[in-house]
Amino acid sequence: MIKERLQKCCSLMKEAGLDVLLLTKPSNMFYLTGDGRLCTYAMITQGGKVALGVPVTDVEDVKRLAHFDHIVGFDDEVGMIHSIAHYFEHFGIKEGTLGLEYTFLTQAMMGMMTHPHAKPEKVTPKDCTHILSAIRMVKEAEEIERIRAAAKVAVKGMDAAVRAVAPGVTESRVAAAAEFAMREAGAEGFWRTYVASGPRTNVAHGLPTNRKIEKNDLVMIDVHPIVDNYSADICRTVCAGKPTAEQQATYDLYLEAQQGTIKMLKAGAEMMTLENHLHQVMKDGGHGDHIFGPPIHGVGIEFEEAPLPPGHAFFHGEKAPPPLLANVVLAVGNCGLYAGPWGVRVEDTNWVKADGYETLTEYPRRLQPQSNVG
Amino acid sequence: MIKERLQKCCSLMKEAGLDVLLLTKPSNMFYLTGDGRLCTYAMITQGGKVALGVPVTDVEDVKRLAHFDHIVGFDDEVGMIHSIAHYFEHFGIKEGTLGLEYTFLTQAMMGMMTHPHAKPEKVTPKDCTHILSAIRMVKEAEEIERIRAAAKVAVKGMDAAVRAVAPGVTESRVAAAAEFAMREAGAEGFWRTYVASGPRTNVAHGLPTNRKIEKNDLVMIDVHPIVDNYSADICRTVCAGKPTAEQQATYDLYLEAQQGTIKMLKAGAEMMTLENHLHQVMKDGGHGDHIFGPPIHGVGIEFEEAPLPPGHAFFHGEKAPPPLLANVVLAVGNCGLYAGPWGVRVEDTNWVKADGYETLTEYPRRLQPQSNVG
Repeated sequence: MIKERLQKCCSLMKEAGLDVLLLTKPSNMFYLTGDGRLCTYAMITQGGKVALGVPVTDVEDVKRLAHFDHIVGFDDEVGMIHSIAHYFEHFGIKEGTLGLEYTFLTQAMMGMMTHPHAKPEKVTPKDCTHILSAIRMVKEAEEIERIRAAAKVAVKGMDAAVRAVAPGVTESRVAAAAEFAMREAGAEGFWRTYVASGPRTNVAHGLPTNRKIEKNDLVMIDVHPIVDNYSADICRTVCAGKPTAEQQATYDLYLEAQQGTIKMLKAGAEMMTLENHLHQVMKDGGHGDHIFGPPIHGVGIEFEEAPLPPGHAFFHGEKAPPPLLANVVLAVGNCGLYAGPWGVRVEDTNWVKADGYETLTEYPRRLQPQSNVG
Repeated sequence: MIKERLQKCCSLMKEAGLDVLLLTKPSNMFYLTGDGRLCTYAMITQGGKVALGVPVTDVEDVKRLAHFDHIVGFDDEVGMIHSIAHYFEHFGIKEGTLGLEYTFLTQAMMGMMTHPHAKPEKVTPKDCTHILSAIRMVKEAEEIERIRAAAKVAVKGMDAAVRAVAPGVTESRVAAAAEFAMREAGAEGFWRTYVASGPRTNVAHGLPTNRKIEKNDLVMIDVHPIVDNYSADICRTVCAGKPTAEQQATYDLYLEAQQGTIKMLKAGAEMMTLENHLHQVMKDGGHGDHIFGPPIHGVGIEFEEAPLPPGHAFFHGEKAPPPLLANVVLAVGNCGLYAGPWGVRVEDTNWVKADGYETLTEYPRRLQPQSNVG
């Protein structure tokens, strides 16, 4: 599996004129070597050779998990730079083009990766984000099964969170319920949990606070467990009591936009068409001014990854995506509808197939989900 | 408070020849405006004017929390770039030096911040990391109290985790106990939780997995709650049974190194001297080859921030720190001792005072902490 991925990677490197990659983003390293962790790097040649540099403490653990041709442990930052220089020399790379992850490297990390003691002078850095995105975009059968497993854990987390919603309970306590349930169900971790209530449901990134939920508040919950290195993405909005008629109508509109877009999923569909459809339903319902953020994104090792709709992709350092291929996994509903005093969002993770789709995050989509709310 | 911080910031900008800052790092924006969140920016002029750009959804929420002279909401990435251009024009900045956070901005984000439609051509970008680090390094009385509150929550999380340690329990389940307890105790969130057991205690960044703890395993737990926007850092290593004589002796050595270094904390002490002392105790005990990572770092809005010892500071894009000033808060013991088959680490958050220190994370430091372990 790793070998096939490496082959694809090398052929894309050739096309893009990249002689060697120097990866530091854990998700990319995991995909191409079987292990991804902080403070490590993977150098990958166009010939498919993999050289790893890891903290000296981690050598045995990485050896157990990763595919590689060479591995070296370093003691500190200077050691890391020298080990990179060593690999350039070992592979005989004195000039050419070096692929770096421009969407991951900070300016400071960039300074280390292209340090004059590491990189030969005639080796020129260039962004390689699109190569990794291209090969990770279409999922293998085993990856789909892992995302399906993560989706099941996400549903358990959502259920625990929804059951925790009640007047007087803090947003953070609702998040606690979701996170605890996800770890109990097999998650090794999770990406940030969002829980926002009342007026905070109108905020784009509603990280939980100690705000206490009030009776009849809307509560927006968005969770992303990590299970066996893969993720899933689900969002639900529920009411801690009785929604107003306007809230119910707005929720119904958003759900129509989201579900209608999901129904359009199949190989060959264009991301732009999907985004336009979702937005059009909102516009037709009088909420054209209440849109924010990419409504659709990929899900895999990361809960938010390529593909993104073209406009967003550009600013996130990604290329505009091709028409959907079978076995892309997409979260639909990421944008939300922000009405001003409150907002609603419903998001699901979906497996795109040749002739249709399967929603992996099946959980009720109702503002008033069960008796203990309200 | 915010006004005093802005004054200090402006005088450091003047010294460094920076005409304007364009901040996107949430911790820095929080410090200078009272609100920090993703996908927003703060432009700060040398005259102390603050202009914010936030998602249109977030305008009301930010207005409620932040200090600013101007605020604008944008709809998408293009709108964000245009709003930056607007502020450059509004402040009459056509040339000069623009401070950007090189330790935070990825290459892709850098492209947006310096987009030709945003930044006037004659405005030159330069790193401003050291300015924010310098003003955030010495804590105000209220900041110390917030870190103290976070430390109390960290201790509760640690206690819950230690009590969850038992043979057959997964690392992730131990993390769940810590995280749930921290949210229950008032945390709005937390930085990543580390739980590593058995051979994984030798790994530099031991994120939890589904490995089941075995009888007599060492278990390393490191937690960092966020309480009222401030953090604390505590690590303990415990044994799920009876440690070997070698494990106990190694633990005692590391604890001696860590506690001896803490006892040297006071205004005027040099970070390099502290690091050397901690390392020397390990070397004298025969563990000179088992050191990895910066042994000391600052704690505040982030669980790991400036100051760092000089060598590490350089590679993290920071300047070498001055001798300690009163009211710096430091975590001591971050490096750990990695013996090969296992490792040990004990870390505490300490308030540096004019004549000494106070440890804020008081929790027993024993390999066998209580009866239910083993």
